[in-house]
Amino acid sequence: MLENQSLEPTTNGYKAVGHSVRRTDGAEKVRGEIRYAGDLHLPGMLHARPVLSLYAHARIKKIEVEAALKVPGVVRVVTAAELPLILEASESRKRNPLAKDEVIFYGQPVAVVLGETEAAALDGANLVQVEYEELPAAIDLLLALQPNAPLVRRKEGHGADLEAQIHATIEVKAEKEKAVLPPNVSNHVHFQQGDVEAGFREAAVIVENTFRLPMVHQSYLEPQVVVAAPDPLGGLTVYSSTQAGFSARRDVAAALGLPQNKVKVVSMPVGGGFGGKFGLLEPWAAGLAKLVGRPVKLGYYRMEDLLAANPAPACVIEVKVGARADGTFCALKARLIFDTGIYPGAPVWLAGMLLGSYYRFDNYEIEGLEVLTNRPNSGAYRAPGAAQASFAIESQIDALAHALQRDPLELRLQNCAVEGDLNPSKRPWPRIGLKECLEKLQQHPAWQHRATKGVDQGIGIAVGGWPGGLEPATALCRLDHDGSFTVTTGISDLTGVTTSLQLIAAEVLGLKPEQVTVHNVDTDSAPYAGASGGSKTTLTVGAAVVKAAEDARKQVLEIAAQYLEASPEDLELSEGKVKVKGLPSRSVTLQEIANLSMSFGGRFEPVFGRGSSAITRNAPSFAVHLARVKVDRETGEVKVLGYVAVQDVGFAINPAEVAGQIHGGVTQGLGWALYEQMVYDETGTLLSGSLMDYTLQTAAMVPPIDVQLVEIPAPDGPFGAKGVGEPPIIPGAATIANAIFDAIGVRVTEVPATPERLLKAIWSRQF
Amino acid sequence: MLENQSLEPTTNGYKAVGHSVRRTDGAEKVRGEIRYAGDLHLPGMLHARPVLSLYAHARIKKIEVEAALKVPGVVRVVTAAELPLILEASESRKRNPLAKDEVIFYGQPVAVVLGETEAAALDGANLVQVEYEELPAAIDLLLALQPNAPLVRRKEGHGADLEAQIHATIEVKAEKEKAVLPPNVSNHVHFQQGDVEAGFREAAVIVENTFRLPMVHQSYLEPQVVVAAPDPLGGLTVYSSTQAGFSARRDVAAALGLPQNKVKVVSMPVGGGFGGKFGLLEPWAAGLAKLVGRPVKLGYYRMEDLLAANPAPACVIEVKVGARADGTFCALKARLIFDTGIYPGAPVWLAGMLLGSYYRFDNYEIEGLEVLTNRPNSGAYRAPGAAQASFAIESQIDALAHALQRDPLELRLQNCAVEGDLNPSKRPWPRIGLKECLEKLQQHPAWQHRATKGVDQGIGIAVGGWPGGLEPATALCRLDHDGSFTVTTGISDLTGVTTSLQLIAAEVLGLKPEQVTVHNVDTDSAPYAGASGGSKTTLTVGAAVVKAAEDARKQVLEIAAQYLEASPEDLELSEGKVKVKGLPSRSVTLQEIANLSMSFGGRFEPVFGRGSSAITRNAPSFAVHLARVKVDRETGEVKVLGYVAVQDVGFAINPAEVAGQIHGGVTQGLGWALYEQMVYDETGTLLSGSLMDYTLQTAAMVPPIDVQLVEIPAPDGPFGAKGVGEPPIIPGAATIANAIFDAIGVRVTEVPATPERLLKAIWSRQF
Repeated sequence: MLENQSLEPTTNGYKAVGHSVRRTDGAEKVRGEIRYAGDLHLPGMLHARPVLSLYAHARIKKIEVEAALKVPGVVRVVTAAELPLILEASESRKRNPLAKDEVIFYGQPVAVVLGETEAAALDGANLVQVEYEELPAAIDLLLALQPNAPLVRRKEGHGADLEAQIHATIEVKAEKEKAVLPPNVSNHVHFQQGDVEAGFREAAVIVENTFRLPMVHQSYLEPQVVVAAPDPLGGLTVYSSTQAGFSARRDVAAALGLPQNKVKVVSMPVGGGFGGKFGLLEPWAAGLAKLVGRPVKLGYYRMEDLLAANPAPACVIEVKVGARADGTFCALKARLIFDTGIYPGAPVWLAGMLLGSYYRFDNYEIEGLEVLTNRPNSGAYRAPGAAQASFAIESQIDALAHALQRDPLELRLQNCAVEGDLNPSKRPWPRIGLKECLEKLQQHPAWQHRATKGVDQGIGIAVGGWPGGLEPATALCRLDHDGSFTVTTGISDLTGVTTSLQLIAAEVLGLKPEQVTVHNVDTDSAPYAGASGGSKTTLTVGAAVVKAAEDARKQVLEIAAQYLEASPEDLELSEGKVKVKGLPSRSVTLQEIANLSMSFGGRFEPVFGRGSSAITRNAPSFAVHLARVKVDRETGEVKVLGYVAVQDVGFAINPAEVAGQIHGGVTQGLGWALYEQMVYDETGTLLSGSLMDYTLQTAAMVPPIDVQLVEIPAPDGPFGAKGVGEPPIIPGAATIANAIFDAIGVRVTEVPATPERLLKAIWSRQF
Repeated sequence: MLENQSLEPTTNGYKAVGHSVRRTDGAEKVRGEIRYAGDLHLPGMLHARPVLSLYAHARIKKIEVEAALKVPGVVRVVTAAELPLILEASESRKRNPLAKDEVIFYGQPVAVVLGETEAAALDGANLVQVEYEELPAAIDLLLALQPNAPLVRRKEGHGADLEAQIHATIEVKAEKEKAVLPPNVSNHVHFQQGDVEAGFREAAVIVENTFRLPMVHQSYLEPQVVVAAPDPLGGLTVYSSTQAGFSARRDVAAALGLPQNKVKVVSMPVGGGFGGKFGLLEPWAAGLAKLVGRPVKLGYYRMEDLLAANPAPACVIEVKVGARADGTFCALKARLIFDTGIYPGAPVWLAGMLLGSYYRFDNYEIEGLEVLTNRPNSGAYRAPGAAQASFAIESQIDALAHALQRDPLELRLQNCAVEGDLNPSKRPWPRIGLKECLEKLQQHPAWQHRATKGVDQGIGIAVGGWPGGLEPATALCRLDHDGSFTVTTGISDLTGVTTSLQLIAAEVLGLKPEQVTVHNVDTDSAPYAGASGGSKTTLTVGAAVVKAAEDARKQVLEIAAQYLEASPEDLELSEGKVKVKGLPSRSVTLQEIANLSMSFGGRFEPVFGRGSSAITRNAPSFAVHLARVKVDRETGEVKVLGYVAVQDVGFAINPAEVAGQIHGGVTQGLGWALYEQMVYDETGTLLSGSLMDYTLQTAAMVPPIDVQLVEIPAPDGPFGAKGVGEPPIIPGAATIANAIFDAIGVRVTEVPATPERLLKAIWSRQF
């Protein structure tokens, strides 16, 4: 399975964890047999098709629905006024699914047509006529930042309180700066240490650049889709592609004014989320179902998902760094400007914090601005803010090394953050593996042989770090009659984590993986787990599973102790049996224990383990990447010849899956570096609104990826494991940009590094 | 709701338990909005229609399926040979759903037709031609008991091992008697104490009678129905009307040779079970689904359910009792012969044990025989064996009182069992409420005014006791974001117990009932609970819910203690808040605690209570009933004018539901007494095979029922509650028979006491 990987897992004598196994849901997925939310067909279900705005900013003068209603099978056309959602004080897209009076981005849903069939709904949607009065729009990020830029919303109507709210937010965060912030700025952050100007005065070299990243779409295989079904007693069941079941339950209950126990969210198998499915369509679909009293399926087509979901934000990052002659970094000054689209919520704080956190700078000043524009609001995308920050800072470190004529890896080793260093949020890093990852790459043949390279080939390296999310979680572990165990959690599985949880429980219980089944169940009966995101599921839910399985094991041993008339300390559980140590003939099987505790007249309590975790120490994880590229000077094409991804994963529960996660992350990072961008014209119209225009890599475009694991255990993680999902996407853009510089001496400051951009840069140097 | 009831609940200051509330599923049910298993329609689902045997015992010579297969929409005709079930060593109907080579009861399924529609399957089933060679059948119970009776199965073929097995069983139980047992006897029990013949020599009066009870059907509103759906990875989901989800999972997994974690049983809302739905069609439906790889719905029509389910067994009970002149009982001799139908499993042990347990007899000898006949095998029916035993013994106690010229209630009080008395299983009764129930009835106006009665009116009383079932169980209790709680269990709700569990959790948590939701979930994620039967669900699962809610409350207080910087002992939880005692301003709401423990970065573990129970002390419950009847000497009709049901319920969690249970039980007891019987002719053909012939009461036929509760707490029950389901059916037949005797001096020894039988008895006395 992983023949060509040198994963070197540290199995430490473990029998289940640390060994590569296939995903429990793999067969079902590759055979096309799994059922996603979009595959559901409930009796009486209506299909919903949205009508999308053709303007980035306009007043809605009239919505003509007569023609649509005449289409056979069209049941209803619903506009914002009819949707039974509670909108008060809501600042989120999911609570405002339909434009009211005013459209505020191109592609915004204005109405929705419900049909007995998808075809009827689609025909109806095509016949809904919306009359608009165009309004000035704030599209370009830097123009939107200007004090005299058009406001993203008119002051009257449904967005009336926005400006007040903006200032209220800022008041809290930076009272003194309130007066000077332009009207479309919705958040402002500031990190500072030392005296940055004094720092630059110490510098032997200073490099200064401005970096630009576009809006990028998460490009999950499965677009967002929700089926909402009202129940006869006023509640709702919501089947969703979301990665955040409990959060969707809260959203729907709040939006509909229902108690939460009236809403059941079934997290269906997720066809990719990457942060983009933290909840978007659920209240909308639920509102439609409530309105018509029938099940409603509301799903985006690919183009709709590109137009009207929640992509990663575009940004502009100005970075100036200085180093002393001895290579120590002395000053960093940065300004990050994030395009949050039409609602606040871009990861500007996190980007600013991370930008200043990988290395020790005695003096820094980092400022972040979040700017509203008439574009779709930004959402999370795998390591939100980190890919952007790393592109900027890691390009600059490379430039510093070049200016100092230093080995860029050595320079990083000299300055990299280690345990105890304060990051810009003024919290000390715990034990992290950045240094070990750098050292591991330093020993790697790809780095060792970096001098051996062909014409226009280059080697680039870059760092990516992720603080790791935390959220309390509970898991359950039930003994079954046949001596197997069932683990229950409330997660959505985006990444194969179910298989990891299976291995974790099997290890604790001394069983084979197939003797443990993991069920991730709906919000009616699941123990709590947060959204699957932030690289926290294995860490936090895995820790809960360890405790649940330990609890179950303890109960097993207690029953066995009574049954075998032995002390629990003298017993051992392995291979489905509890044995008295040294007396293998005195034993009782798990099946017998199940029957003693789960049958008519049984005298023992059922074995039912519960474990909870509330980890409060972050388990940050770092990745260091290396790429070897060849640039075609005639076409501007960059070919990635080889890629090495070193990552500290704490402990690889299922090395195959860890490698799979890293492959996926690297591939997405290469998308940022070379291919992907949502291109808007000056009116705010999306030009790359289909997969014909928005370039996703095919398998043939992905280089061989050599995954190298470092295992610095997380103290609270299961068997030391850390989250692994986020880091592998982070260094991609900088790694490729640095390799291109090494190949042809051109510093890429805007990604994707398309042939067009590269050729322009090459030509501008030639003439 | 209960205006005309004198329930006198002991609320003891409780706020939730002890107060009558509506059932949580009541509205849905009365509005016809609940969906039962029969209402499911899965994509691609086939409909199954059985072909039933026309003989009680015959060899199957040929099954012609050609004509059936030509019906448009018929997909397949399946016989036993094709059904992929593992039959080895199976002695149960559910593992042998289709006759193989030989039919052994009238109505036995011989084949099943699968159709795209129900109509196609039905047309197909009507065209399947089965050629039989009739064999001698054992139909009449006493004839089947004869040493030379026809064997219920030929020795060859699928039932070959039966005879050997029968003797093996008996060998264990009564080695010495092996030689004398006739071939169709499948079980034999024996209870003895003292010297029964010596006992009778002490007697001043002796009465001896033989009592007969017919096979009676549980007559649930919803016939048995199962939908089985294969999943793409070789597992199955089974949606069933069963009252025993985990047991159905075991049956299906064993029958199909699957690990249990490949079978998910969804216990659908049950439209009445009364013991008859402990699993019957599940492996059959699962086998069909596996065979064709499509979902299959297999449900009985009413006539099929009458023909081929598992009704209560018929029996003949000979009882001789003697009392001394002072009224003390000195001797009991009884022989119980139970017709178990075609598979062993009749409740003859329980009937024999109960028959000798209500009163102190110094000397007794009780023998029980279970006899195989060519009739459908017996199943459990509300207090299996107890209604039969009580009819016999309570009629005899009435006859003794008459012979002694004693007040029958006084005589019972003089002799009734109390705590410490040994029952025939040689176990002492724990604290029971039989005496208190008799005393309560003694004070009741219906008894006090018993002398005031019209022409041909009579008053009868009788006792019914039930030992109560026990089974370990687990329950969960989760705090939700809105400060409400969700309780999860693995039960099926037949009786409104969900509402009782809600009240129990609300009481422990100091909340209003509507702030607790109870979900009874499928076997994939449910904590273990046994079948809902044996009057054990409230007792055992209720005890687990108490502990789960207490566990959740403890966790809430621990979080609050840290948050409020107080000691947990100084805190109190009520009305959704934790307050510092004496300092009401220092408080934290459950909603705040939920957010502290279930949100990104939260520092406390989620509140998730778990509670298990493994009660080992039975909580027997007794009922004493009184009926006032009027007998029409011209028509033989018995009219029940009034009915009093006194019952020790331990503690009435939801008095309205307890009363509802007792109303239902009394009504079914009246069915046994006066109306219900499955009549077979001498060839084994069921003559009362539809509700036109099998008499169920209509609402107008049910008398007013005065429910009187006695509350002798069960030490392990939640708030002292005992199971209440079984006792109210038990005394019915004897109560009515004794009232008839009081009215017209006719001793009814065979129920139902139909007009035909009564007239015969009246006439035989007149001439």
